[in-house]
Amino acid sequence: MFRIEIAATDGAARCGTIHTARGTIRTPAFMPVGTAATVKAMLPEAVRATGADIILGNTYHLMLRPGAERVARLGGLHRFMNWPHPILTDSGGFQVMSLAGLRKLSEEGVTFRSHLDGSSHALTPERAVAIQRLLDSDIAMQLDECVSLPAPRDRVAEAMALSLRWAARCKTAFEASEPPPGRALFGIVQGGVEPDLRRESAEALAALDLSGYALGGLAVGEPQAVMFATIEATAPFLPAAKPRYLMGVGKPADLVGAVARGIDMFDCVLPTRSGRNGQAFTRHGALNIRNARFAEDGAPLDPRCACPACTSYSRAYLHHLVKANEILGAVLMTSHNLQHYQDLMTGLRGAIAAGQMADFSRRYDQGEAPF
Amino acid sequence: MFRIEIAATDGAARCGTIHTARGTIRTPAFMPVGTAATVKAMLPEAVRATGADIILGNTYHLMLRPGAERVARLGGLHRFMNWPHPILTDSGGFQVMSLAGLRKLSEEGVTFRSHLDGSSHALTPERAVAIQRLLDSDIAMQLDECVSLPAPRDRVAEAMALSLRWAARCKTAFEASEPPPGRALFGIVQGGVEPDLRRESAEALAALDLSGYALGGLAVGEPQAVMFATIEATAPFLPAAKPRYLMGVGKPADLVGAVARGIDMFDCVLPTRSGRNGQAFTRHGALNIRNARFAEDGAPLDPRCACPACTSYSRAYLHHLVKANEILGAVLMTSHNLQHYQDLMTGLRGAIAAGQMADFSRRYDQGEAPF
Repeated sequence: MFRIEIAATDGAARCGTIHTARGTIRTPAFMPVGTAATVKAMLPEAVRATGADIILGNTYHLMLRPGAERVARLGGLHRFMNWPHPILTDSGGFQVMSLAGLRKLSEEGVTFRSHLDGSSHALTPERAVAIQRLLDSDIAMQLDECVSLPAPRDRVAEAMALSLRWAARCKTAFEASEPPPGRALFGIVQGGVEPDLRRESAEALAALDLSGYALGGLAVGEPQAVMFATIEATAPFLPAAKPRYLMGVGKPADLVGAVARGIDMFDCVLPTRSGRNGQAFTRHGALNIRNARFAEDGAPLDPRCACPACTSYSRAYLHHLVKANEILGAVLMTSHNLQHYQDLMTGLRGAIAAGQMADFSRRYDQGEAPF
Repeated sequence: MFRIEIAATDGAARCGTIHTARGTIRTPAFMPVGTAATVKAMLPEAVRATGADIILGNTYHLMLRPGAERVARLGGLHRFMNWPHPILTDSGGFQVMSLAGLRKLSEEGVTFRSHLDGSSHALTPERAVAIQRLLDSDIAMQLDECVSLPAPRDRVAEAMALSLRWAARCKTAFEASEPPPGRALFGIVQGGVEPDLRRESAEALAALDLSGYALGGLAVGEPQAVMFATIEATAPFLPAAKPRYLMGVGKPADLVGAVARGIDMFDCVLPTRSGRNGQAFTRHGALNIRNARFAEDGAPLDPRCACPACTSYSRAYLHHLVKANEILGAVLMTSHNLQHYQDLMTGLRGAIAAGQMADFSRRYDQGEAPF
């Protein structure tokens, strides 16, 4: 059975374990993003070695290439990409809005043109669930409408209401698909940065009794304080006994603040994408390895990190690789950033279990890297 | 002390061990190419795991970026790139001819413009040795002039004679640098496809008493039969007690034929470069994984291969990764091709040791993959 077991709370923060058919997920959890059936530049064993319990796959990308039916014929996403552990798939809605061309939204769903070849596709709540069942992800997400902020309140309210109706349709489709035991469907709270809309969305979704709840439509350009205030206005109206997932977030400091406000799960392309671009997250802050000051720096990226990049290579070597556009540069930088994110999550889980979350947050904000 | 120990011969073929200060090299040996201080797309541990005893580094690329003095300040090439095993460096001559702009050749050496930023550089026999000593490679190569074929006999003879004079200057510079024990300098036989010029070059180099001898200026477009004939016209005039290295070769069938003719060492970008482009070498021939027929092929690239790509992934997944330009596609395809090349070398060494080289060659030519 899919469930979250809360081992400890500390203020609003929680730590625990999510049980799935394919293994357990220590929470708070960071999910590396595996857009096209690969966490970019990483062997799955290397992703696992950083401490990742679960990764995310993108319905939009996978439905276009290689196609959900094809993945199903090849044994499902886990077998296809050699990741036998839990996978969460998003619903495709966010990417349709941000990547696809010629979108047309209706009550029924959304039609769009592929950013790869211009071909026409449709995504409805039912199709989004069907694709995720074909991929056989452990956690499926409802289809939602995510509005770019800032947006008029009416527009935000409309999208929130549509997302609620789609949540109900997704639940019906998910149950009708008779998924194997341990598979979950999460709802997505919308409502922009309007506290009353967020509360309305959260309460209506809670009434649907889904397996978990995400906060969508955040980290889309609003200030961090606004995002934190929105989490505070939402989390109390979500059932404590279900996982809470903040979608697409974020920077390390965002994770610390969101965990303190009761979030259990995160995903973000930041550690992987910025790693490929030469940005490293370290315990002394972020650095851009392309900077000339690293050209003869024989020190590791972060002396307290145990990742392959930090244990076996100098900043000078990483500088060289990234400047020369060498694939190994992307591999090592990604590997380091994912390790940093997982080390941060391990630190957060430890702080919550020890009742030290406030101290952890304070020291983190002072630049101490208490992990 | 640097030396080759011949364990067995079978016809002209030899198998044995080269001893260096940084470890032994089983021969016949294939050296993966690590142009810019990285075997492209590979962690050094993964290169080692394929069975590689030695890799090649490129003087031309490393002198331009990150610079030989910089590598020396960072502890040498082995430490820089985390490869503690033997490294052979070429002299830069071949890349100056094939990559650099505005070349000017004289008795003294060659001046050229960097293909990276247009900056001016000079390479003399003495500077080529100095760079290789700064990198601290285990096997350094003399600077030579490599003529594109076809070329007039006079031009070939002239380049061969210049290369001989440069060999003597390299030897003087190498000895004057007082290298640590176990470091070697190899001469390079030139002479195009003219048997008498090759013999003259080989005999003159042999008289210089270098630690090993390479055949340069082959695999530059001539038919395989001509390359084989040139090896046959050269190898007998090289000392049997020194390693023989065929530079820049080649396809798997080239390696089999050259080993049968007495070659001990090879390097080639083919397994790495073609891997990144989607070509896989298998025991049933080469295949292009981009081909649509692999889109739903659940079989491994080569069922008899033990590399990570073959043990954990389908052709369909590799097809997807390469089509989607995913870095993991380059990683897995390169990994497979390097494993294939090392497996071939293991097979050749076993055949020679067992006195079965003729049988191995015959079966290989019939497409049987006797390894």
